[in-house]
Amino acid sequence: MILEKINQPNDIKSIPREELPLLAEEIRSFLIEKLSVTGGHLASNLGVIELTMALHLIMTLPRDKIVWDVGHQSYTHKILTGRKEGFDTLRKIGGLSGFPKREESACDVFDTGHSSTSVSAALGIAQARDLAGDDCCVAAVIGDGSFTGGMVYEALNNVSNMKTNFIIVLNDNGMSISENVGGFSSYLSTIRTNDAYTSLKRAAEDALRQKDGGEAAIKKLRGMKNNLKSLLLPGSFFEQLGIKYFGPIDGYNIDRMVTVFQNAKKVRGPVIVHVLTQKGKGYPPAERMPARFHGTGPFAIETGLPLKKKVKADWSDIFSTVMCKEGKKTPNLCAVTAAMPDGTGLKRFRGMYPSRFFDVGIAEEHAVTFCAGLAVGGRIPVFAVYSSFLQRAFDQIVHDVCLQNLHVIFAIDRGGLVGADGETHQGIFDLSYLSLIPNICVLAPKNKWELADMLKWAVRKTSSPVAIRYPRGSAYDGLEEFRAPIRYGEWEILYDESDICLLAVGSMVETALEVRSMLKKEGANCSLINCRFIKPLDEQVLQRAAGEHNLLVTLEENVETGGFGSQVLACLNDMGITVPLERVALPDAYIEAGSVELLRKETALDAESIYKKIRTRMIGLYT
Amino acid sequence: MILEKINQPNDIKSIPREELPLLAEEIRSFLIEKLSVTGGHLASNLGVIELTMALHLIMTLPRDKIVWDVGHQSYTHKILTGRKEGFDTLRKIGGLSGFPKREESACDVFDTGHSSTSVSAALGIAQARDLAGDDCCVAAVIGDGSFTGGMVYEALNNVSNMKTNFIIVLNDNGMSISENVGGFSSYLSTIRTNDAYTSLKRAAEDALRQKDGGEAAIKKLRGMKNNLKSLLLPGSFFEQLGIKYFGPIDGYNIDRMVTVFQNAKKVRGPVIVHVLTQKGKGYPPAERMPARFHGTGPFAIETGLPLKKKVKADWSDIFSTVMCKEGKKTPNLCAVTAAMPDGTGLKRFRGMYPSRFFDVGIAEEHAVTFCAGLAVGGRIPVFAVYSSFLQRAFDQIVHDVCLQNLHVIFAIDRGGLVGADGETHQGIFDLSYLSLIPNICVLAPKNKWELADMLKWAVRKTSSPVAIRYPRGSAYDGLEEFRAPIRYGEWEILYDESDICLLAVGSMVETALEVRSMLKKEGANCSLINCRFIKPLDEQVLQRAAGEHNLLVTLEENVETGGFGSQVLACLNDMGITVPLERVALPDAYIEAGSVELLRKETALDAESIYKKIRTRMIGLYT
Repeated sequence: MILEKINQPNDIKSIPREELPLLAEEIRSFLIEKLSVTGGHLASNLGVIELTMALHLIMTLPRDKIVWDVGHQSYTHKILTGRKEGFDTLRKIGGLSGFPKREESACDVFDTGHSSTSVSAALGIAQARDLAGDDCCVAAVIGDGSFTGGMVYEALNNVSNMKTNFIIVLNDNGMSISENVGGFSSYLSTIRTNDAYTSLKRAAEDALRQKDGGEAAIKKLRGMKNNLKSLLLPGSFFEQLGIKYFGPIDGYNIDRMVTVFQNAKKVRGPVIVHVLTQKGKGYPPAERMPARFHGTGPFAIETGLPLKKKVKADWSDIFSTVMCKEGKKTPNLCAVTAAMPDGTGLKRFRGMYPSRFFDVGIAEEHAVTFCAGLAVGGRIPVFAVYSSFLQRAFDQIVHDVCLQNLHVIFAIDRGGLVGADGETHQGIFDLSYLSLIPNICVLAPKNKWELADMLKWAVRKTSSPVAIRYPRGSAYDGLEEFRAPIRYGEWEILYDESDICLLAVGSMVETALEVRSMLKKEGANCSLINCRFIKPLDEQVLQRAAGEHNLLVTLEENVETGGFGSQVLACLNDMGITVPLERVALPDAYIEAGSVELLRKETALDAESIYKKIRTRMIGLYT
Repeated sequence: MILEKINQPNDIKSIPREELPLLAEEIRSFLIEKLSVTGGHLASNLGVIELTMALHLIMTLPRDKIVWDVGHQSYTHKILTGRKEGFDTLRKIGGLSGFPKREESACDVFDTGHSSTSVSAALGIAQARDLAGDDCCVAAVIGDGSFTGGMVYEALNNVSNMKTNFIIVLNDNGMSISENVGGFSSYLSTIRTNDAYTSLKRAAEDALRQKDGGEAAIKKLRGMKNNLKSLLLPGSFFEQLGIKYFGPIDGYNIDRMVTVFQNAKKVRGPVIVHVLTQKGKGYPPAERMPARFHGTGPFAIETGLPLKKKVKADWSDIFSTVMCKEGKKTPNLCAVTAAMPDGTGLKRFRGMYPSRFFDVGIAEEHAVTFCAGLAVGGRIPVFAVYSSFLQRAFDQIVHDVCLQNLHVIFAIDRGGLVGADGETHQGIFDLSYLSLIPNICVLAPKNKWELADMLKWAVRKTSSPVAIRYPRGSAYDGLEEFRAPIRYGEWEILYDESDICLLAVGSMVETALEVRSMLKKEGANCSLINCRFIKPLDEQVLQRAAGEHNLLVTLEENVETGGFGSQVLACLNDMGITVPLERVALPDAYIEAGSVELLRKETALDAESIYKKIRTRMIGLYT
């Protein structure tokens, strides 16, 4: 095994050139084998093995800096910097992160997770390098999918000022997570399928080479050789922004990449190297189904089939079904996604109502304002988006949707803890950052039927902004017997007793039910209210609950600051009510990767911990 | 006066062609005259008078739709749609808004205020039009400055899908608020100063026209006429994104613009019309000093000089001075702005330390992640930004700065009510949206000395993210006698008495002082604490205050939801302390335009209202 010789940064440099393809294959097998057990981001990593090796061959780490956009494609980088042992604990609590982490290695220079940040971050690092008088190499590696995010363009617009070396590696696999969209993607594919370019270039070169061209036109053309050349180069888009373009080059030809990267290092100024890769490269199931192997659970290597069968429908599946049905009943209904037709469950809607479906690419900001435009035009847009990615569009929600009080519906998937993707992907801020915005309604369903009811309510019964927030994973299918119709600002009283009152939001209703059982077992009385509306609160029910209980307990899978519990407190205070209140919420901290179950235990959000907290508190109240 | 004939939408169409230039001049004089009294955005509006007229000539309003990016250049649009009478109340409470407002007119189709939203919104409106089977004309008018915002690019990337008419008018004045920056701007100026283009184009056309061209090269070139043409067109940047390009055309030639706009209307697909304008056109002082006349107060028409002289230094001036001094002492200090070197006060820093100053263009998202990169590279970046614009970068603060706990300093100007710019510009959400983020420190100074002390503290004594939030306008220079050194998480007790305790944040310390005087006059005891740290709270001082007073009153110029007051409540609750607490904060609503003084009265944030509230509450407590 050549891989055995890779134990610390730069070890790859002592591997003989002819053995590199073999090393690539070993890494490929290693990744497939390890991920078949742990799960993880497979397709993107298989695509960039050779690209990563080539970068490591021309760089000295950690002196030189690589910023990985999104970062889920950094597995080979982790292997080449001495972390291959970590792959058994990949994405587990205390284990190897699925993303670059500065805490993990000096070779990880910038933590990533969300899309399109790498050029900005790397540019900052490069400018800092220049100010320090250093001359290390700084590179951002970014996929063509991430290129649809506006931040990249903001950064590119700034890159042109650089007078020192700065490398952007465009890892072009022709996809984001699903198929790519938009003008930039078509532009790239023009370069990729470069017949037109090649023949055009040859023609121009012929013209320019024409030594005895008597005609004025040719002369003029020759006189403007440089201008013309830059216009005819495939990267003219970039060149117009003042960035030198190299490519496109084959992402599986290590020698060629090394040569081009070395040339790129010599450029004094910004340079983009356009590398063609393929998601899932070398593993047929992943090549065939790159979206399925974007982030995968454990799978059988031979077939690529998932080891665990899905028993229950996911929240996204429920959302998907309701959208399809509702699309029929409400001809004005539109669906918008930012490059997540699969993940959000909108794929079926796309199939049924293609003209009312919009995939805008990884572009959450645009997505929200685009929805505002649709709403102004009389449509009813539903933007389905992961909670942590919607953070990108905070200003657009404030400034474009809620200010005009427009009927835009946010279907916020992956609200709360999401598990293995870790810090960057936890959807734990949304209740706080949404509730502070005027005019918006914020809801969370307790179970799958309620998600359906809420979505229908939001489409049919309102005309202002609504956010419905639901978790990752299997949809809760308990409490079917409780299905009070959704009414603006009204909570649902599930159990009406005395002493303790649990005020639970969304996913925490299921947990609260468990807590209640534990309390009941010891003879305590315990009410349970499904606080469907986080904004506005149900002041009437809250007031009554405060009057009839000795202890209120708020439960939410959201940070404590500015969340549901603190809003309940504020509301009680404004009503002049004083009552013991215990807030159960996530701490004011980022939450690491790990299974949701374990993370809940760690953050004391599991039934057992909550039960204990309440018992202690009750003892305190009675003594 | 021709202007007298303009009283409702489309009236301009009955003005004879030859009188249009005269009308333009009348509008120009009207704007200069009115704004010399009320103040407002002058330079941008003077630049687009003719452009707006041309658009109105080819459109039928309100059937056709114009989305104004940022919207501060919509004054002529307002005049042409029958609102000229409103200009005496421009930007006052209940008066004409300085921005498009759907509530104000059916001809205002989308509210704007922040930059770079127009293409997204207009695209949504255009798609809604297509779904409805309508065929009205939809246009976005956007300045070249706004083009540095990434959202535009996200939208352009989507525009290429359109198969129906969609017009983007690029209003190119070669500036944002200050000078433009970046690669895109250089690209546009290449088109503007188009010698190279013109000669190249002629050469190519000659070559293509060559009927008897015997040479192979020429033949090939001719064969690829269309490809080559699009490469040689000045708008190849746009054409590569699938958008047809017309221009550049003279923004003061109404006939020419009408012709081109009419052609653009016929295109079935997206088209960009590149119009060259000049900020401040026709009013020499504004032409000379477009930044000064971006947003101006009342001025003398003859000289252009402001009518009111500044007596006190603004908060921005204080910030500016401290940054310049600190730049000398701390060689690692960097300053970053998103196109606001004047407004934020960073111009002097730029002059003194050009290599450590970065103007990234209107690109707040990139700015924040770029700062994160600088911090990773060992620099200490200060991002000076207006509160409401920082909303754009919420995710970058969460995901790129605070997650990695980087030493990035946010100097947040225009925190709280800002006045005449209205809803979109009020900086009233920042305490809430910042406090919910882990690892960040949020501070607000009571007076100018404290701003200096906080900034120095943030630069020298910390190594994690710090936000310092200060208001628009004159810096408070009272309370000089209180200057306790800044220490992490410590509040400053100004007056230590009993009964009532005022817990005031930033600008509200001055108000609290007034409230205290009022209370003292009737013999009440009243403590006053300067709550410098909004995050973290000073739990010790808070606990003591709760124990020693009958009523706590929190005061903040921020929305009540998730703000300082609600955090104080939560903190008290967590400590198990019950004490009467009155939260003085802005309501959960957008706040209209008007003078800050009046707005404070309207929202009960003035000393008188607060005093009354406290009196009522105290009577309630004692009876």
